[in-house]
Amino acid sequence: MQKSNVLVEALNMNGGDGPYSYAENSSYQRGAVETAEEIISRDIASKFDTKQLSSISPSPICIADFGCASGSNSLIAVHGIVEAIEAKLRSQGIDSKIIEFQVFFNDLVTNDFNMLLTSLPSERRYYAAAVPGSFHGILFPRTSLHFAYSSCALHWMSKLPDEVTDEGSPAWNNGRIFYIGAPNEVLEAYSSQFAKDMDSFLSARAHELVSGGLMALIVPAFPDGVLSLQTTNATEIQLLESCLVDMAKIGIVSEVEVDSFNLPAYYTSPKELKIVIEKNGDFTIERLETLKNPKRHIAMPNLRARTMFWRALIEGMIDKHFGEGVADELFNRYSTKAAQCSLFMSPERPSSVMLIAVLKRKDYLLGKK
Amino acid sequence: MQKSNVLVEALNMNGGDGPYSYAENSSYQRGAVETAEEIISRDIASKFDTKQLSSISPSPICIADFGCASGSNSLIAVHGIVEAIEAKLRSQGIDSKIIEFQVFFNDLVTNDFNMLLTSLPSERRYYAAAVPGSFHGILFPRTSLHFAYSSCALHWMSKLPDEVTDEGSPAWNNGRIFYIGAPNEVLEAYSSQFAKDMDSFLSARAHELVSGGLMALIVPAFPDGVLSLQTTNATEIQLLESCLVDMAKIGIVSEVEVDSFNLPAYYTSPKELKIVIEKNGDFTIERLETLKNPKRHIAMPNLRARTMFWRALIEGMIDKHFGEGVADELFNRYSTKAAQCSLFMSPERPSSVMLIAVLKRKDYLLGKK
Repeated sequence: MQKSNVLVEALNMNGGDGPYSYAENSSYQRGAVETAEEIISRDIASKFDTKQLSSISPSPICIADFGCASGSNSLIAVHGIVEAIEAKLRSQGIDSKIIEFQVFFNDLVTNDFNMLLTSLPSERRYYAAAVPGSFHGILFPRTSLHFAYSSCALHWMSKLPDEVTDEGSPAWNNGRIFYIGAPNEVLEAYSSQFAKDMDSFLSARAHELVSGGLMALIVPAFPDGVLSLQTTNATEIQLLESCLVDMAKIGIVSEVEVDSFNLPAYYTSPKELKIVIEKNGDFTIERLETLKNPKRHIAMPNLRARTMFWRALIEGMIDKHFGEGVADELFNRYSTKAAQCSLFMSPERPSSVMLIAVLKRKDYLLGKK
Repeated sequence: MQKSNVLVEALNMNGGDGPYSYAENSSYQRGAVETAEEIISRDIASKFDTKQLSSISPSPICIADFGCASGSNSLIAVHGIVEAIEAKLRSQGIDSKIIEFQVFFNDLVTNDFNMLLTSLPSERRYYAAAVPGSFHGILFPRTSLHFAYSSCALHWMSKLPDEVTDEGSPAWNNGRIFYIGAPNEVLEAYSSQFAKDMDSFLSARAHELVSGGLMALIVPAFPDGVLSLQTTNATEIQLLESCLVDMAKIGIVSEVEVDSFNLPAYYTSPKELKIVIEKNGDFTIERLETLKNPKRHIAMPNLRARTMFWRALIEGMIDKHFGEGVADELFNRYSTKAAQCSLFMSPERPSSVMLIAVLKRKDYLLGKK
């Protein structure tokens, strides 16, 4: 239980701009961001509600990116959103020049905000602010945001499901680091935690967004009907897992440590995500589809890039759980194993996908949810 | 010219929480913050305007601290301001529980925001955000703030006056690092830059604050009628200066480097500050007086604490201008010289003071300044 919280506290993408940093190793995520941009711009053009802007005393338009990390993907996304809203304002005959924008960059308090803030363009169309804290809770005053965005972040859970590290539970996930290849109880524990987290996220955003406010979410997922075991991600995680098990066998890490280590992430599916959003009830679903990410397969066969990708994601957790120094050994072993693996020679194997959901905050009576 | 900009870019208080950090060496500033707190609370009780808060759809009350640095002084100040506003709301029969607060922590982009954000109390009465950028420019949307605060920051200038590093100017400040003991032209150049900077600061805040919005400023100054040369600060800066001159003589730094190094800071006076605020015209002066700081003299005779105080303030600039390693040598020499100096045996000598100004944003017609 304690372990699981420690892990989630270490859930920051590698900071700075060194070779293992998230900033240098997030081109896969950038592909998704860029592909989504056009779709989001179109939805802003048709669905962004300008009625909420008073023509007499125009308030700023407030935008927040939840889970911005330290890299530049967030800046690209935010730039696109601001441009699309400006275009929408102009199309409505509103003088977009008098409208001010305020953009909030959110991530966990352990995120490298210094890196993010120093990389802000000096010429920009918006006032910028960094907001620390878990997006599973409320981070802004009520009805203070007009547009919410989150990319490649919602698969990270607020905590590991308790059962997974509980020896007495049928969902105890010993000898594995993820739910892939595990008993069904483990998958169910992960899925149930994801549903709870997603509901918390939606309720918090419902507090923060104005009536009619839009939200665009890019969520890593497995396609409906694809068994997770068949995907490249499954192979990659299982390779990592087997390296850790090997390291436990020769005493570099302990078996107990491997048993208690689990990735606090979950790949949802289009069907499952739809159910969670509908059950929450605060938003209408304006769009929910799989993103056609043209860069997905390009990144895939490059073994070094994929190793760095995983390292940027999970090194913080490995350090926290196993101690410093283990990550070097782990990723050396991973490179060696992966080089012998057919995965990187068959890029056509199904992989995880990115879902894009565009949601609209339902109107609500004040004082009620 | 270029040098002066480089210096101001390095104008960040030492980050982190190590022995030379601002966080560990700002108890002098904390004394001022704590003394001011009571005065600010009283002024909030009598002058904070609650009419701007709609009872139907209450907006958050937005507070900004300009020049927050990385330490905890800012958190203490902000806590006091929020409590005082809550008390005022209750006294007006407003249910303060339904009012949300949003606090923005501003400093230069080079500030250690990671340190600041990780030291935020987890249980707090406000939503927090960090805002990077120079407070001499506009940092927030128009009429988006209800209360502005700045402590021990406004003496830092946006740039060195050009003349001071211009060999052809009568204000060329060769062989010195400050205006103390310099020709009158140097003092005038500093004073004129301070007036410009203060006017920019006030105009920017006038854009951001609501009509009737309050601003509390704690500004380091010399008392009216006290010649700056007589103060302890003057002695301390001249000691630093003489160490640098000594180091130039034996070639540790170059003479040219010392000639071009000047501290981009200015101690105003009560009279001068009043003139600058009145000339700007956006604010009424609700209070302008010298703070009685009980901790001032306590800190004074402690040589080590004062050395650390100066180091936390200017090490970044020393590193940037003279290169790494020079600071160690400089502050070793400083300690030795200071130990032989009568200054630390006579704490009753006049020192710089802190002014407290409480200003109110004048009402204005929309579209006009």
